[in-house]
Amino acid sequence: MALIATPCSTHTADDMITTKARALPVIEVKGIPAGNPDFEELRWAMLNLFDSKVPEELRVPQHYIECPPRDVTQIPRSCGILTPEQIEITENYDAFGLAAAIADRKYTAVEVVEAFSRRAIICHQITCCLTQWFPGDAVKQAQALDEHLARTGTTVGPLHGVPISLKEHIPVKGQNTCFGFLKGNVTSTEDSDMAALLRNAGAVFYVKTMQPQGLLHLESDNPLGRVLNPFNIQLTAGGSSGGEAALLALRGSILGVGTDLGGSIRVPAAFCGLYGYKPTVYTLPITGLLPGVFPPSLNLIPTVGPMCHSMRDMNLFMHSVLEQKPYLVDPLLVPLPWTGLQTPIPEKRLKIGILEMDGLIRPMPPITRAISWTRSQLSSCADVEVKTFAPYPAEGFALIRKLIMPDGGTGFRAALAASGEPEHYLSTAVINNATDSSTLGQLAQLRCDRDAYRRQMAAHWTSQDVDVVLMPTFVGPAAAHDTAIYKSYTSIWSLVDYPCIAIPTPLTAKAKGAERYADENVLGPEDEFVRRAYEDTSFEGAPLGLQLVARKHHDNLLFGALELLKKPLKLK
Amino acid sequence: MALIATPCSTHTADDMITTKARALPVIEVKGIPAGNPDFEELRWAMLNLFDSKVPEELRVPQHYIECPPRDVTQIPRSCGILTPEQIEITENYDAFGLAAAIADRKYTAVEVVEAFSRRAIICHQITCCLTQWFPGDAVKQAQALDEHLARTGTTVGPLHGVPISLKEHIPVKGQNTCFGFLKGNVTSTEDSDMAALLRNAGAVFYVKTMQPQGLLHLESDNPLGRVLNPFNIQLTAGGSSGGEAALLALRGSILGVGTDLGGSIRVPAAFCGLYGYKPTVYTLPITGLLPGVFPPSLNLIPTVGPMCHSMRDMNLFMHSVLEQKPYLVDPLLVPLPWTGLQTPIPEKRLKIGILEMDGLIRPMPPITRAISWTRSQLSSCADVEVKTFAPYPAEGFALIRKLIMPDGGTGFRAALAASGEPEHYLSTAVINNATDSSTLGQLAQLRCDRDAYRRQMAAHWTSQDVDVVLMPTFVGPAAAHDTAIYKSYTSIWSLVDYPCIAIPTPLTAKAKGAERYADENVLGPEDEFVRRAYEDTSFEGAPLGLQLVARKHHDNLLFGALELLKKPLKLK
Repeated sequence: MALIATPCSTHTADDMITTKARALPVIEVKGIPAGNPDFEELRWAMLNLFDSKVPEELRVPQHYIECPPRDVTQIPRSCGILTPEQIEITENYDAFGLAAAIADRKYTAVEVVEAFSRRAIICHQITCCLTQWFPGDAVKQAQALDEHLARTGTTVGPLHGVPISLKEHIPVKGQNTCFGFLKGNVTSTEDSDMAALLRNAGAVFYVKTMQPQGLLHLESDNPLGRVLNPFNIQLTAGGSSGGEAALLALRGSILGVGTDLGGSIRVPAAFCGLYGYKPTVYTLPITGLLPGVFPPSLNLIPTVGPMCHSMRDMNLFMHSVLEQKPYLVDPLLVPLPWTGLQTPIPEKRLKIGILEMDGLIRPMPPITRAISWTRSQLSSCADVEVKTFAPYPAEGFALIRKLIMPDGGTGFRAALAASGEPEHYLSTAVINNATDSSTLGQLAQLRCDRDAYRRQMAAHWTSQDVDVVLMPTFVGPAAAHDTAIYKSYTSIWSLVDYPCIAIPTPLTAKAKGAERYADENVLGPEDEFVRRAYEDTSFEGAPLGLQLVARKHHDNLLFGALELLKKPLKLK
Repeated sequence: MALIATPCSTHTADDMITTKARALPVIEVKGIPAGNPDFEELRWAMLNLFDSKVPEELRVPQHYIECPPRDVTQIPRSCGILTPEQIEITENYDAFGLAAAIADRKYTAVEVVEAFSRRAIICHQITCCLTQWFPGDAVKQAQALDEHLARTGTTVGPLHGVPISLKEHIPVKGQNTCFGFLKGNVTSTEDSDMAALLRNAGAVFYVKTMQPQGLLHLESDNPLGRVLNPFNIQLTAGGSSGGEAALLALRGSILGVGTDLGGSIRVPAAFCGLYGYKPTVYTLPITGLLPGVFPPSLNLIPTVGPMCHSMRDMNLFMHSVLEQKPYLVDPLLVPLPWTGLQTPIPEKRLKIGILEMDGLIRPMPPITRAISWTRSQLSSCADVEVKTFAPYPAEGFALIRKLIMPDGGTGFRAALAASGEPEHYLSTAVINNATDSSTLGQLAQLRCDRDAYRRQMAAHWTSQDVDVVLMPTFVGPAAAHDTAIYKSYTSIWSLVDYPCIAIPTPLTAKAKGAERYADENVLGPEDEFVRRAYEDTSFEGAPLGLQLVARKHHDNLLFGALELLKKPLKLK
C-alpha cells in the first residue's frame, strides 16, 4: 500500500477562511477551512473571548501584522511593547538561569511572569501560537511564590517562579482544556499530574498553546488558526506541539511542555531550532492528557516532555518532576532513577551511529548537510566512536500507520460530524492512509506485530553495536504549510518506544536553489513527493535540527551521551 | 452482577471419563469430561505416546495407584525405584545448594538430572503432573555441561546442571508446546526467551508440566488428566501452574517455571507449600509463551516466574536471568537492576500491612489462623512495624472479570468447538461470568477503567503507609476438585500489576470440623459459596500458604522485605 497521501480535494481555496477579521488580528499567510454556521458561531465566540482579554497597550503595531517580514523573530524586542528589563528577562536566560536569578532575588516571580506574559501575547499576534492567555491568574501564582520566598527564605522547589507554557490538551486547574476538537472544550477542575508536579516544583502557568485538529498531524492548524514558523512564516512551526515551538523560538516561553506520539515534540522542536525530549513511555505521567476513548492508545502510548533552549533545562525539568516520585501516585510510571546529564558512558567511549537516510525517503539537501557537519565535528573526538547506522527493517513504516489509527479514523470523523467542524487538509491526509483494524482479533494481531517489530529493532540496534543514534528528525527543514505529511524519521521511534531528543545545530537552510540532491535516484512515491516539495519551497532561514536516539528505557544514557556531545556539536 | 459461578450442569457424572485405563496408570480421584470420537482418538494417541516412553522399572507398584493414601508425599522415596543417592540428591538440596554441589563436583550434572527424571516420572504416576518427560534429551544436555566443566574448570553459569521443570506452554526447542487446548500442540523449533536464558545459565530441561484447559482456571485439569495435591489427593494442586506445584512438592523438581495472570503461580504454590513469585509485568520475558491472539493480553499481561523451595532459589533464578540483560533482546522488559534479597529496607524498619480479609470473601478458618500466627510471630520484631491493611476499593473485583476475558469467552469456545474438546467444569464457571467488551470503544474504556483503578489502589496503598502487605493467597487451603472458583485475593494484584510472593507457613489444615468460622456474618453469595465449601471438605494435611505483596516495580523491596521476615516467619 502506498504511503503517500491521497491528493486531498476536500477544500478549495474558496472554502478557506481567514481569521484576519479578529478583534486581535494575527499574522496569517494561509486560511483554514470553514465549518457550518453553528460551528462558525462557536468558533468566533471563542476567538472573541480570547481577544477581549488583551489590552490595547499589548497590541502589536498594525504594520507588522499587515506587511510582516519573512522572519518575525525580531518583532517582540523591536515592537516597543516590552521594557528593557522585560527584554533582558525573556532573552538572557534559560530556565535554569532564571530559576537561579529568582532564588537569588535578582527578579521577583511576578516580574518574570509579567515579562513572559507580555512577550507571549506579542508572539501570539505574529505566529498564532496561543489558545489561552491568563496573565492575571499567573501573577497570583507568582505573588504566592514571592511571599513564600520572603517569608521562609527558601524556594518551594527547583522551578520556583519559572514560567512554563503548556500545550492546550494538558489540563491545568481553572483553565480550559480541549483534546484537539473545538467542541468539548471544558474547564479543568484539577491539575493533571504533569501540571501538578510542575506546580509543586514552583512553576507558574500563564499560557496554553496551539495544537492541530484532533492532535493528529505535523502542523498546528485548528479552528482557532494556523501557527507560523517565526524564522520563515511561509513555513509551519510543526505539530502537534507547534504552538509551543513558535512561542519558545520567540522566547515568549523558555520552558514548555509538549506531547509526542509520532514526532509531535521532536518535529516542532527541530522546525524551530529547539531542544525537545520525547522520553520512553511512562517515564512522565500522561494521566488526564487524553480522553478515555483515544483509539491510538490501544496500540501506542503518547508521551509528554519538555521543549526548551538548553540541555540543562531538559535535565532540570526531569529532575524537578522525578524527584517527587510521581510513580507513587501514577503506578503506570516506571520508577527508574534519574541520573540525566551526569550519567557516565560505558567504558568512557561513546559509540554513536549516524543514520543518514531511513530507506524510505532521502532527506532534503540541507538536512544531509547538517548530518555531514556532525560527522565532521565528531571525527576528531577521542571519546566518540562514529559508526554508520544501517536503516532498520522497512516493515515498520506500514505498521505504524496501522497502529496509530486502529479505527481507520471513524472516531475522528464522527467527532467532526457531531459538531460541524470541517476536516483540515492534513487530517484528511492521515485518515486517508489509515486502515480499520478495530476487531478484537485484529487489534490483538496488530499488537503482536508491534511487539515483533520491537524485537526486530532491538536485534538491529544490537547488530550495529551503538549506544546512541544521531539522525534527521524530519525529511527536511520546517515544511511549507499543509505539506508536513511524512513522519517516518520520528514515528519509527514511537513504534519501538525509544527515547529521543531533538537537538538544534548552528546551521540554517539556504536560499531556494542553493543546494541540490546529490543522489538523483528516487526511492518511491514518498521520496518523490518530498523531492517535489523541496523544489517548490523556499526554506531560507529555517533552523536545521537533528535527533539523538537511545534504546528504550535508556533515557539516562541518552542524556549522558548528549553531555558528551555538547562541545563538538556546539550544544547549549 | 453476582460473582458466583452459575451452577454448571454441562457435565453429569456419566459424562466423566477416567484415564485409569492408560498404559501407565496414574492415581485418579475424579474423571474429566469426554469429547467427541475424533477428539478422544487424538487424546488417547497423546496419552499412549507419553506412556510408551516410560520403562517398566520406573513404574510405581500397582497398589499405590489402586489404593492410594490420602497423602502421597512419601511414595517417591518409599516405592523402591530410587537409589539412596538419588533420594539424597532430590531431597537434601535446594537449587542453590545443588548448583554448588555440582560446581564442587560432588555430583555430575548427569547424575543429578537422572535422579530428577526418575523421581519426576514417579511423581507423575501419583499426581498426574507431567505433560512431557524427556530424560534422554536431558542427559545429553547434562553431558555437555559435565564436559564443559571438565574441560574448562568453570561452570557455564550460575544454574550449571540444575534441572528445571517448565509449565507446558513455555516453548523449549525440540519439545512440544500447547497453549492449553489439546489441539494445536506443536514441536517448538526454538527456545522461548525464558527457556533460552535459563539454558544459557546452565539449566537442564527434562519435563514439562500440566496446566488447565485454555490456561484459564485454578485447577490443572485438561484432556490429559487432572493434577492431584500430593498432601491430600482429594484436593487440587491448584492452577494454572498446578503440574509444577505437585511436581515440586514431591521434589520431582527443585526449581520450576510457572506463569500467572490472576494467581496461576501463587495459588498452586500456596496449595502445595511452596514459594512462588509473580514479578511485575515485563520483569521477565514472556515472548513466545502465548498465541498471538490471546484476548486477555489486550488488557492484562501475564507474567512468568519461579516456583521453588527456598527464598534464595527465587533470588538465584532472578539473578541468573537478569544478569544476562534480557532487555537487549526483548525491549518490552524494564531494565531495573536486580538487588533482590540484598535490598535494604528504607530506614531499616519494615512497615508491613496485614490484610485479613478483602471485603468480598472471608478466608476459611485455617487461613485466618495462619494470618494470626504471622501477626504473633512479628509482634516482637524490633525492625518490623505491623499495621492492619484496610481492604482496597471493591470495584476491582468486578473489573478484573471484565478485563480478563474481553471477548466474553467466544474465542475460547470457538477453539473447543473446532476440535471437539469438551468444556471442563471450571472453564464454564469462568466463562459464564465473563462479559463481552470486544468493540474498540469498549476495550478503550475498559483500559481507562483499569488505569483508574490502578490509581485508586496506589492512593489506597499510600494512605495505609506500608512497604509490603502480608495476606491470604486464596480463600482457603487447597480446594476440593472443581471448587477453586474465586481468586479475588490474587487477581486483584494482577489487575494492578503488583509483584507478589506466595510463601509457605509451617502450619497445615486440621481435620474436618476442628476449626470454625469466628464470624458468622455472611458477606454475600461468594462468601456463602466458600463457607459451604469449607463445611463440605476435609482439608486435613493441606499446607497453609500466604502472600507478600509490594508496589508495582518494587520487586527488589519485596525481596528485601522477605529477607527481613525470614527468621520470624520461619522461612527457608
